[in-house]
Amino acid sequence: MATDQGPISNASVVGQLVQRCAPAWQSYTEHAFVQQIANGSLPQACFRHFLIQDYQFLVQFTRAYALAVYKSTSLDDMREAASAVHALLNTEMGLHVEYCQRWGISESDMLAAQEATATTSYTRYVLDVGMSGDLLDLLVALAPCSCGYGAIGAALMADPATRLADNPYRDWIELYGGEEFQRVSRGAVEQIERVTRARIGDQPADSPRWEQLVCIFERAVRLEASFWQMGLDLAE
Amino acid sequence: MATDQGPISNASVVGQLVQRCAPAWQSYTEHAFVQQIANGSLPQACFRHFLIQDYQFLVQFTRAYALAVYKSTSLDDMREAASAVHALLNTEMGLHVEYCQRWGISESDMLAAQEATATTSYTRYVLDVGMSGDLLDLLVALAPCSCGYGAIGAALMADPATRLADNPYRDWIELYGGEEFQRVSRGAVEQIERVTRARIGDQPADSPRWEQLVCIFERAVRLEASFWQMGLDLAE
Amino acid sequence: MATDQGPISNASVVGQLVQRCAPAWQSYTEHAFVQQIANGSLPQACFRHFLIQDYQFLVQFTRAYALAVYKSTSLDDMREAASAVHALLNTEMGLHVEYCQRWGISESDMLAAQEATATTSYTRYVLDVGMSGDLLDLLVALAPCSCGYGAIGAALMADPATRLADNPYRDWIELYGGEEFQRVSRGAVEQIERVTRARIGDQPADSPRWEQLVCIFERAVRLEASFWQMGLDLAE
Amino acid sequence: MATDQGPISNASVVGQLVQRCAPAWQSYTEHAFVQQIANGSLPQACFRHFLIQDYQFLVQFTRAYALAVYKSTSLDDMREAASAVHALLNTEMGLHVEYCQRWGISESDMLAAQEATATTSYTRYVLDVGMSGDLLDLLVALAPCSCGYGAIGAALMADPATRLADNPYRDWIELYGGEEFQRVSRGAVEQIERVTRARIGDQPADSPRWEQLVCIFERAVRLEASFWQMGLDLAE
Repeated sequence: MATDQGPISNASVVGQLVQRCAPAWQSYTEHAFVQQIANGSLPQACFRHFLIQDYQFLVQFTRAYALAVYKSTSLDDMREAASAVHALLNTEMGLHVEYCQRWGISESDMLAAQEATATTSYTRYVLDVGMSGDLLDLLVALAPCSCGYGAIGAALMADPATRLADNPYRDWIELYGGEEFQRVSRGAVEQIERVTRARIGDQPADSPRWEQLVCIFERAVRLEASFWQMGLDLAE
Repeated sequence: MATDQGPISNASVVGQLVQRCAPAWQSYTEHAFVQQIANGSLPQACFRHFLIQDYQFLVQFTRAYALAVYKSTSLDDMREAASAVHALLNTEMGLHVEYCQRWGISESDMLAAQEATATTSYTRYVLDVGMSGDLLDLLVALAPCSCGYGAIGAALMADPATRLADNPYRDWIELYGGEEFQRVSRGAVEQIERVTRARIGDQPADSPRWEQLVCIFERAVRLEASFWQMGLDLAE
Repeated sequence: MATDQGPISNASVVGQLVQRCAPAWQSYTEHAFVQQIANGSLPQACFRHFLIQDYQFLVQFTRAYALAVYKSTSLDDMREAASAVHALLNTEMGLHVEYCQRWGISESDMLAAQEATATTSYTRYVLDVGMSGDLLDLLVALAPCSCGYGAIGAALMADPATRLADNPYRDWIELYGGEEFQRVSRGAVEQIERVTRARIGDQPADSPRWEQLVCIFERAVRLEASFWQMGLDLAE
Repeated sequence: MATDQGPISNASVVGQLVQRCAPAWQSYTEHAFVQQIANGSLPQACFRHFLIQDYQFLVQFTRAYALAVYKSTSLDDMREAASAVHALLNTEMGLHVEYCQRWGISESDMLAAQEATATTSYTRYVLDVGMSGDLLDLLVALAPCSCGYGAIGAALMADPATRLADNPYRDWIELYGGEEFQRVSRGAVEQIERVTRARIGDQPADSPRWEQLVCIFERAVRLEASFWQMGLDLAE
């Protein structure tokens, strides 16, 4: 892992966490689900199952950012988290619904679907880490998603093995690899940078708390990988 | 209390709560602080002290609505609470800061000021009721503020004893008595109506939970009255 | 489901919830893992995997009862939940550790093991339902465990297909089917009875909240069934 | 502040916090209420009012330690906090009730009394700091009580101005100055020592988080002083 991961520079806090759990990170970011998206070979039923669960994921993700507002001790942190809540509820969910319609899935289908175990485990793990810890614990548990999807998108765009032409998942790749989402991910990386500085200082890896943050991050990365696997297995 | 209280109709859940603790409600809504605003006789130092504490109140109030997003079990409830968070952070705080500048108070003054005990007690009571109970408990604890300020504004506008001409507090009266704020307050009344129906049903006053809601509401009303008193006493 | 389920009488709140999700309840209480315990055919590796995860489950279960203390609004409810916390930390964990030693598993093995996804999903679901809802929501999410293990134990003891002689799982069956555990389970059923009466009243199934409680209970039942399945599959 | 404060050594984390807010600490620990207890001159009505509020304080304090169990990330921390919950519910509340009976106050009097604003503000501040922050934030917010009462008791016992003979408050002084309570307070000091080391490290005062902990501690100290003042003023 010699090079930066898209929006995640090696020197950043998130970059250091990534390096501490490199095998888990690779299993997540280069998961078979992602590779089959990249080359277009993913069975469409798997993608549809993923899209439905991703909608339910977004709902819980929004609750997690609302919790971040509650947990913030400065107006700047409150505003940062509240703008994520606002964007999720008023933009991203709408885009997701539109996108799913093109795959033949209606919003009521998504609301009626049962949450898969993998969706429950990652989302509720994040919410519980966030409630029992502080804002930094919460943001680190969110990072595999908030920062990781940007890294995955950037890697897909940069990878010569990625096929865009005639790939049914081209829009998805271009969404997460596109400049707008990269900017959002860089924002999430920077937010963790700031909150780490405020709660731990400039040398977080020297803090006794660092191992706890590595544990939270690694566990969240593994649960994100289970989320891809759930798509691949069409698992409940 | 034969008539509706501005945005609070007697038949509404909030209206029924008001009727159950009429003396406390009257002590709050007709507090000397409010009456002296109405006739312009309030010492300006009291008003300035109140404005500074009100800013700190808004910060905690925002956290309470973020908690309501986290606590919501439907997208509609999430959106309703999130739009309050958004309005508070991006509109109301800005208006408050502008308004305070006209009273010679800068935002840094407000941020530097120590939170008064009365501010702490109401805001943290709301947050704790909300965290330990459900969304309805939280909204009922917020109601003396979210619905009550609208009732106070409407009462001031309707009261022949209110003097607008040459009243230094005229803007304040017209803000809370004005149509826009009345609409916001009616929204808060209706939100409680919906959540009550979803959690208790159509006859909330027949539920064993009703007495608990009356207790929460009455206590919150008393703590709001202490907030006015803090302004009057210039209390820390 | 014409008859009572051990400590769960049909007329009780928990009994009514059980009847509302009979297929899920049956899949949980008569899961292959349970049947193979009953006839002694369960591979011992599966049981060991289950025991390790069950230890980690107990830690989170203790946190859930601590949350119930925080969420209680009466001293009686606080004492009831606190005595569960005390028993879990000071008795049940010790018994579990002793029991596991007989299966060749040390406490440090259990602490070092990674939490399986199925363990994470049930425990964090319970904690999140409990934090976002009220005490009743929390207790209902706990019920498949707090009341269900007693029902399973009683069913195993009553079932002629259960083989105790030369069954390596005999102790386990006798623990959960034994009088002491049955008493604990009846206590959990009665606690839900009391809290339901205090929060909803005598006809909970007529309350609009009933469907929400059914959803929480059914989902928790399914997640408990996944916990058995994790044992059977030796799943991470 | 050259010397240790009873159970609080100058070198301990709590000792360093005390030194950072020496004026507030002195206003709290040498409050007129405390001095009038020491010399027996406190009006008995003030003491009775204090006792009633102290009972309600204990209930919220118990909830705070239950929250500490939920927030703990090690079994040792869980056990430490759970033993406080157990002692509060099963020993200290009983002793308090007995003691109050000698002052003519029954448990039902205490339960029926309205919580004073000063009781609400300190207890809910602690609960909110604890919920929004991590275990260390919670323990620091509790420290003015968990460690401070021991410091006050030790100071009273050591002070030649304290009069024990014919002092109606002699039992109270000897309780908090006695060896058993001193041991409990030392335990609270040591718990903060351990959790600080685990979350920040060996040089907490060099951490950027230190100023936040000082703020939490100082604010909690001030709210504790308001609690004495409430007794003196017979304030609601």
